[in-house]
Amino acid sequence: MDPRRPPSLQDVRTAAEAIAGVAHRTPVITCTSLDRLAGAQLFFKAENLQKGGAFKFRGATFAVKSLSDTEAARGVATHSSGNHAQALALAAKTRGIPAYIVMPRDSMAAKRAAVESYGGQITECEPTLTAREETLASVVRTCGAEIIHPYDDARIIAGQGTAALELLEEVPDLDAIVAPVGGGGLLAGTAIAGRGLRPSIRIVGAEPTLADDAHRSLETGVRQPPRPPQTVADGLRTALGELNFAILRETVDEIALVGETGILEAMRLLWERAKLVVEPSGAVPLAALLSHAPPARQRIGVILSGGNVDLCRNPSCNFWH
Amino acid sequence: MDPRRPPSLQDVRTAAEAIAGVAHRTPVITCTSLDRLAGAQLFFKAENLQKGGAFKFRGATFAVKSLSDTEAARGVATHSSGNHAQALALAAKTRGIPAYIVMPRDSMAAKRAAVESYGGQITECEPTLTAREETLASVVRTCGAEIIHPYDDARIIAGQGTAALELLEEVPDLDAIVAPVGGGGLLAGTAIAGRGLRPSIRIVGAEPTLADDAHRSLETGVRQPPRPPQTVADGLRTALGELNFAILRETVDEIALVGETGILEAMRLLWERAKLVVEPSGAVPLAALLSHAPPARQRIGVILSGGNVDLCRNPSCNFWH
Repeated sequence: MDPRRPPSLQDVRTAAEAIAGVAHRTPVITCTSLDRLAGAQLFFKAENLQKGGAFKFRGATFAVKSLSDTEAARGVATHSSGNHAQALALAAKTRGIPAYIVMPRDSMAAKRAAVESYGGQITECEPTLTAREETLASVVRTCGAEIIHPYDDARIIAGQGTAALELLEEVPDLDAIVAPVGGGGLLAGTAIAGRGLRPSIRIVGAEPTLADDAHRSLETGVRQPPRPPQTVADGLRTALGELNFAILRETVDEIALVGETGILEAMRLLWERAKLVVEPSGAVPLAALLSHAPPARQRIGVILSGGNVDLCRNPSCNFWH
Repeated sequence: MDPRRPPSLQDVRTAAEAIAGVAHRTPVITCTSLDRLAGAQLFFKAENLQKGGAFKFRGATFAVKSLSDTEAARGVATHSSGNHAQALALAAKTRGIPAYIVMPRDSMAAKRAAVESYGGQITECEPTLTAREETLASVVRTCGAEIIHPYDDARIIAGQGTAALELLEEVPDLDAIVAPVGGGGLLAGTAIAGRGLRPSIRIVGAEPTLADDAHRSLETGVRQPPRPPQTVADGLRTALGELNFAILRETVDEIALVGETGILEAMRLLWERAKLVVEPSGAVPLAALLSHAPPARQRIGVILSGGNVDLCRNPSCNFWH
């Protein structure tokens, strides 16, 4: 499979077969009280319950599975400070091959520990994009591992599309699907699966106003650089990928923008009403639905992308009563 | 169906048919990192994702559905300050009949609001058991409604047993099931379904040491009064029911006791690792498994009974990072 060409619905189906029994088939959750607030019927695809706590494990598993035995023996490599590093290390461990992860020196200790617990081999670097890319290139020169980009790679996109594929298998008559957009791999995969299975479906990306590069890129028709990272939705601070931009231009109806307060309020509602621990990035689609009222009584799929947060450890705070 | 006779496996099956399409068929969740901590393979029945946020909706729905049209027209009644009040009001609303709920004056505002939002008609009383029972008797004299006891009623027990029935349909080869025990309705229903479907299965109740009346009752063979309510697991402070005591004596292998720290630690682990918001009572079975190591590599069903907590609203606390 060519990592630089847009994947097809058939590629998403191939990915679904490849990851079956390795990744979780996550449940679809409904919640009457959130339906009432949104004025629509919502079907949450709970990727916070995926292995590693996020959808990322789907794409990483498919990318690792697509390698030939010879390629796989040399291992996989990436630079990442977040969920992709964990997902790739876990996927590599599942196939029994090495994973070389370049992590900036200021990565969170918990994320480093997770990568190490999956057997990932960490190389530290300075916390700049140049240092990350140079260090990765040098690691790969030594070991010959295959670089797996976190989102701008057809294998990753096809893998992430399996979440929407499963959702539409369970709820075929959706009017729309909303997914968050950061680098764009999840939204691109969602759009390919959604449009492929149901051409009339509306595909909506949800993006923080403070990280609106996908919105500006689709408005202007030219890929725009990201703003300085500020949004609380840390998973969506990355730049929109080139391949993903090309796919989104053809397939996405709208990028809805949401403010920071809306993201936090949606996150609290998901914890309180749906009883699901969802990270800020994962709450962005619900925030979009609550601030831009969808047509009444529509049936809307919502991808809850992940649940990796650290609970408050302030000793004066119980985080619940 | 006689509310005073122990229900059979067939009654649980009847309940499952009656509540199908009304109650959620909740997902069974697995989590590798919790498996590692417990040294066993755990299958969590996520009743925190049930309508109303707790298993209680199962029993309440079956009890309401078992009434004849004439009985139903007079409505249902109960006294409760907690999840049963909400579940019964919601179940009655689903059938379109009145629900009369006697609530002590010191009930939480949020719980009153939930009962009212389901159309439940609240009568206030003093916060003593005598006042609750007398007020309920007077309400029922006026309206002729059917009293639905929160746990010591065969219809309720059969309804709660449907959670274990669904769990064993999905994972038939469990070695054991662990459920929390308060009034005993959930554990009795679990035992009837579990033993009925799989006679060799081990049935374990999990109970806070600070509310160990079920443990003491089974040890001594005589139903023991509860201690003054102290445990953080507020759902398990109730007295063990008489009918439930009779059922548990015949069907339960063990009541495992757990300390308060263990309950809070298990609750945090469920939020952090399994991404599920679970209330303290719902975390008691995992706490039992973590403090009493089960035989290695066993396959164990765990009933996560509910997720109704209030998130911290202390403005200095985010409850996450």
